[in-house]
Amino acid sequence: MGIIVLGTVALDSVKTPFGRHKELLGGSAAHFSMAARLFTPVDLVAVVGKDFPGEHIRFLKSKGVNLDSLLIDQGKTFRWEGEYRGDLNTALTLNTELGVLATFKPYISGRQSRIKNIFLANVDPDIQRHLLGKMLNPELIGLDSMNYWINNKRKGLIALLKHIDIYVANDQEARLLSGENNIIKAAKALRKMGARMVLVKKGENGVLFYSDKFILSLPAYPVEGVVDPTGAGDTFAGGFMGYLARSGKITPLVLKKALAYGTVAASFNIEDFGLNRTCRLKPQDLARRLNRFKECFLF
Amino acid sequence: MGIIVLGTVALDSVKTPFGRHKELLGGSAAHFSMAARLFTPVDLVAVVGKDFPGEHIRFLKSKGVNLDSLLIDQGKTFRWEGEYRGDLNTALTLNTELGVLATFKPYISGRQSRIKNIFLANVDPDIQRHLLGKMLNPELIGLDSMNYWINNKRKGLIALLKHIDIYVANDQEARLLSGENNIIKAAKALRKMGARMVLVKKGENGVLFYSDKFILSLPAYPVEGVVDPTGAGDTFAGGFMGYLARSGKITPLVLKKALAYGTVAASFNIEDFGLNRTCRLKPQDLARRLNRFKECFLF
Repeated sequence: MGIIVLGTVALDSVKTPFGRHKELLGGSAAHFSMAARLFTPVDLVAVVGKDFPGEHIRFLKSKGVNLDSLLIDQGKTFRWEGEYRGDLNTALTLNTELGVLATFKPYISGRQSRIKNIFLANVDPDIQRHLLGKMLNPELIGLDSMNYWINNKRKGLIALLKHIDIYVANDQEARLLSGENNIIKAAKALRKMGARMVLVKKGENGVLFYSDKFILSLPAYPVEGVVDPTGAGDTFAGGFMGYLARSGKITPLVLKKALAYGTVAASFNIEDFGLNRTCRLKPQDLARRLNRFKECFLF
Repeated sequence: MGIIVLGTVALDSVKTPFGRHKELLGGSAAHFSMAARLFTPVDLVAVVGKDFPGEHIRFLKSKGVNLDSLLIDQGKTFRWEGEYRGDLNTALTLNTELGVLATFKPYISGRQSRIKNIFLANVDPDIQRHLLGKMLNPELIGLDSMNYWINNKRKGLIALLKHIDIYVANDQEARLLSGENNIIKAAKALRKMGARMVLVKKGENGVLFYSDKFILSLPAYPVEGVVDPTGAGDTFAGGFMGYLARSGKITPLVLKKALAYGTVAASFNIEDFGLNRTCRLKPQDLARRLNRFKECFLF
């Protein structure tokens, strides 16, 4: 039980065909937490600047997220500005200001170092390795990354993969890091690079899960009213890892349920801006949509 | 029981990273038949030229496909030449020679006009309408088309949709004809245009099925060794419609099984060139892979 997530807490400015919002609370660790908290206690490890609004801290705490290791550093909070057009499948990054993220070194407490489930969301692989080095009894380690690190810290990222149970990537990242076009070949190559299991997120096209013993594949939950996809992948990871952490074991059945919960959590996330929808989620909302999701393909 | 399929019988020249083959037996009706025959008797309606090899006719007959309405006309057989690169997801058409297809008018027998299950595979909408006009007791009508007709015979195609039970399209075609980016919105718009149900094929990303009462969504069967995707969509349609024809009813459960059989049939098709793999398929091969497919997502 319990999961610790390392990642970003950010101020996101987003424009989609459905509106424009400035400096929304976002970031990989925030989106992850909003889904994972529905399954298990979450400890968040991240950094923000002195400019970070106190209301956001109170908000995260009110959602039960432990912020003992949310560092408030001198400088500005990490900001991302992006736009989605057309089918809303790809974000166009307009601006990124690293701020305090540029010099971030995570610190955790003794209690936190004994948490067994770990998710290293998308930050510099050096920071991910740094936190992993502090964990005393890791049982399940998930890792996400992004194109920027694959291109610029490839060696460090690959070295890290050998310690990872589940490497979580989107299809582009999986292809980029593996050099393989076919997504199953890509997953297999990433397995050979060291990750024990590989989860490829394909957005509106669902997910593929690869391990030596079995391959799993789920469609996405059909959402007509996509408003803002920002954080969908992190929300997916939160539901997926949160369910695994609560289950305390890895079997094909548990993995399929975890993938389904991740899918359903992400489907809520994209229905509104930022954390607007996922912050109001209750376990019974997930359960209800999970049942409807099953109806889409179970026979 | 029984299905009649109108479409093309062609000579396909295909190049993929795994080889190059000249004048393979292909075409939408041929690929469709190779999957549908595993479920129900198939009558094929198409035209070939005097140059069409007799061995192909004997081959199709040996697979149990009824060729009473395969017209052998003065002129050359329809030829398609294409290439797949990279991830093999998109065909690059190098050359098309319509030949006898340009002046094709389908003729069917009295027995054939009473067949209740009809699939109008991709040919000129005028030819599709012509055949449909001859059918006396249609119970289930499926239709496939392509970008060329959507662009050049849009009005005729839309008029035809009103008589169609299941419009089968790939994701690009669904977006093009509906003008909607979101695939569920696209399916909904196509429903409003007249098709009672809409099936969107997404290649390696599975399928989405839309009707007023429910939405179904299945992933693709994970295939690592994709050799030649030509005809995958038609093979899918053959398995899907063949299963529906055999079932004789439309329920969510029957539809999900039909989608799964279509998926599995298509997964065999892409493992070899032309009809090389599907012509050797037996019902038990489909059943075995269907069980493995279920393991990928059933929970």
